[in-house]
Amino acid sequence: MAIPLALWRPFQRSLASQSPFRISVLSGQRLKVGSNGPKSSITCRGKHTPPLQQASHLLCRVGFPPQLVQARRSFSVLRRSSRLEEGPIMEKVCLNEAARVVEVEWADGGVSMFPYVWLRDNCQCQQCFNPDSRARLFLMADLDVNLSPVTADVYAAGTMLTVDWPDGHHSQYDWSWLKGRCFSTQALEKRGRDWQRKTKLWGSELAHDLPKADFPTLLTDDRALYDFLFRLDSVGLVLVQNVPCEIGQLERLANRVAFLRHTNYGKEFVVKSKPNPSNVAYTSAKLGLHTDLPQYNYAPGVQMLHCIEQCKGEGGDNHLVDGFNVAYQLKEENPEAFRLLTTLKVNFQDEGIDYHRFYLRERRPIISLDDKGNVENINYNDQVRDSILDLPTDQVQALYGALKAYNTIMYLPRNCVRHKMAAGEMIAFNNTRTLHGRLAYSQTGGTRHLQGGYLDWDEIYSRMRVLKTDLGIQD
Amino acid sequence: MAIPLALWRPFQRSLASQSPFRISVLSGQRLKVGSNGPKSSITCRGKHTPPLQQASHLLCRVGFPPQLVQARRSFSVLRRSSRLEEGPIMEKVCLNEAARVVEVEWADGGVSMFPYVWLRDNCQCQQCFNPDSRARLFLMADLDVNLSPVTADVYAAGTMLTVDWPDGHHSQYDWSWLKGRCFSTQALEKRGRDWQRKTKLWGSELAHDLPKADFPTLLTDDRALYDFLFRLDSVGLVLVQNVPCEIGQLERLANRVAFLRHTNYGKEFVVKSKPNPSNVAYTSAKLGLHTDLPQYNYAPGVQMLHCIEQCKGEGGDNHLVDGFNVAYQLKEENPEAFRLLTTLKVNFQDEGIDYHRFYLRERRPIISLDDKGNVENINYNDQVRDSILDLPTDQVQALYGALKAYNTIMYLPRNCVRHKMAAGEMIAFNNTRTLHGRLAYSQTGGTRHLQGGYLDWDEIYSRMRVLKTDLGIQD
Repeated sequence: MAIPLALWRPFQRSLASQSPFRISVLSGQRLKVGSNGPKSSITCRGKHTPPLQQASHLLCRVGFPPQLVQARRSFSVLRRSSRLEEGPIMEKVCLNEAARVVEVEWADGGVSMFPYVWLRDNCQCQQCFNPDSRARLFLMADLDVNLSPVTADVYAAGTMLTVDWPDGHHSQYDWSWLKGRCFSTQALEKRGRDWQRKTKLWGSELAHDLPKADFPTLLTDDRALYDFLFRLDSVGLVLVQNVPCEIGQLERLANRVAFLRHTNYGKEFVVKSKPNPSNVAYTSAKLGLHTDLPQYNYAPGVQMLHCIEQCKGEGGDNHLVDGFNVAYQLKEENPEAFRLLTTLKVNFQDEGIDYHRFYLRERRPIISLDDKGNVENINYNDQVRDSILDLPTDQVQALYGALKAYNTIMYLPRNCVRHKMAAGEMIAFNNTRTLHGRLAYSQTGGTRHLQGGYLDWDEIYSRMRVLKTDLGIQD
Repeated sequence: MAIPLALWRPFQRSLASQSPFRISVLSGQRLKVGSNGPKSSITCRGKHTPPLQQASHLLCRVGFPPQLVQARRSFSVLRRSSRLEEGPIMEKVCLNEAARVVEVEWADGGVSMFPYVWLRDNCQCQQCFNPDSRARLFLMADLDVNLSPVTADVYAAGTMLTVDWPDGHHSQYDWSWLKGRCFSTQALEKRGRDWQRKTKLWGSELAHDLPKADFPTLLTDDRALYDFLFRLDSVGLVLVQNVPCEIGQLERLANRVAFLRHTNYGKEFVVKSKPNPSNVAYTSAKLGLHTDLPQYNYAPGVQMLHCIEQCKGEGGDNHLVDGFNVAYQLKEENPEAFRLLTTLKVNFQDEGIDYHRFYLRERRPIISLDDKGNVENINYNDQVRDSILDLPTDQVQALYGALKAYNTIMYLPRNCVRHKMAAGEMIAFNNTRTLHGRLAYSQTGGTRHLQGGYLDWDEIYSRMRVLKTDLGIQD
């Protein structure tokens, strides 16, 4: 259960200058370290934290002056890390003037090349970098991009690279910090995988094995919360159970993650049949499979629908479809339709009064690809697809053919999960991937009352990274 | 001062069947029209609304049975529109089976071609379209994309196109609704211009003529609010004056537009020098020119900084630079650097505790282009540019060269507006275009206290469209 290096780096550096031992912060609350340099403060959280006494003991064992350690809370802690001690250290460094890189030879073999300009730009001294804000203080305006070091060397048993610059500035870099920033093809590929979504495609078979989460557990258990978010990201759909049948629950869950995304429908919206509805969702009519709010340039990332009351009669069942899976099926079966839906722009609009008066418009392809050609977002919504279509006449029939082809595949029984929510259930799904719709329902069958709300992926991914840190999750 | 056609169309249609006169809703609150067809309800707002009596009089003059008009409020109104009477009407329609379009010949010359499939998809009858939600009820699943009409005709003095379909469904389309959706090259180009930003580039000369707005006026005057938003969009910068020197003013202005964008720094953030700052902005250090939060996939659209107290001593001056202008200068002077900054991805990260614990990461080009090659967004922030750089070693020097070139141009005196905010001023600027920075300041010169907050362009553009409607702004 290791804390990211950035968290303990300032501390480790001051330690390394005093001792050949290496330690890492594993858990705790907040540790303040006084050193010869400016003060560093490390915050980390976790369970099973050894007591302060043990932490101090360990610090003394690695030779750190006890008077420099001021633990604010009794459960702050440091511990020797066997993992780090096993890591490679630097055997030798040299300046490669032709390539303008510092070459580092590692004890376990291999060579890393760190460009001169990158090293100077990323000097981690207190003058160049603010460890509290983890922000660069040394600005591009002050950087000579053609600078070469005077010398480069290793010290502290191969754990530190030092670089001296012509203006007398002295930089030092921790071996593990450098290793985590290696420019080799292999390292780039490894880091590149972090940016790839771990998408698991699904069809109707998911109905038998819906990812589920328990609402009270999500509110208290960080691991359960992480797993919930992980499955929202990888599967795109989680059924949350045992939610109290009263309003306010969406916000409780959202606040465990970050906060609700505010839109023109408010922070939460009430899905009930209403007079003069500002949205067709607020009727008892059938809703075709769709993603919400493609009329936004930035559509909400995750939608949550909490069932407080369900109609007793027929109808109101939700349909859920993996829009990515359907898009890849379309690509396979009808590449030209896929090409059209990924390139031609379709208009979406929504105008009315809800949280306030609004008039949203956007135009975009139905299927957005990332720069590797993977499906990234689905923007599909017949209800708010605009009657204005900004295409030449002779492309219109082809676009409709492609829309119809995509629509036809998404409604195939093999692709569709049908679930009539019970009171006390909440569906959370990736709104830029998982298409949702519902059957029409009879208003004589009692009230149907859902509460809806949104979260954004920026906030979710941020929360997942924090939880990974706390829980020591490696992947 | 005309209401969008969609608002008065249902009413106009029922009128047109009774009278050769055409009228349009110009302003008012809410007009309920009972007709032979389903009820239509029109909501519109504006100033200088003629009284109901006049409205009724006008309705009678155009031959509409008075008993069908039930105005809910005394200031609902209709007025004859000379503009509309001058408009073209349909002289003749025919089915072009080869091209699968309905051809419409206009009285003023010219022919429009409306694809069969588009016409069926966009039938505006109550069964196919919900006028309250302005949403399509007729879904792709029900559309036969290879359908051809049985007949097409015009009636009501050339104001209505009717189309009959093989299954007996009957559609009718208003001439002006059709005209607004014409597929001709000319019409597409005209509508395309609506999507283009009206960007006015600027340099240091803007300092002598800063766009200004008066805070109390913005809170009460819709036209002033529209002009403020228009200049934020076109110039990317407005100085708001006469703001009370107390917190809460950002939210007052934001709520006039929409609502504050919540981020990991909260809904508002306090820019003061603080201990253990989560952001380097919360120190007294110099801040290089930057845009905020490029570590978000969706960075905030507009930033507002409200000066409640300014330091008395030297420093703390804001620098403001048009990032688009600088990008185009770079493109001119150093096309290769421009190419690199628009294609190579740079990492941004931010980790810490503020509104909550956060760990945001994103990677993206410094300069984003739209699909026409125009500069769309600037993502530039030395402070949170990550030390992790996911590029092969041999591209690193070139990237730094490009960053330096961009940075050098942005700091040229010709590009930079310098303004030391006084208490009671607020700067609002396009955060994805206008770079901002500040000089270091001395903490012995009194407190420097700014309040910051964000708005998003989706909400701003929505508000601008609503205001355009209300104010009858044509452009």
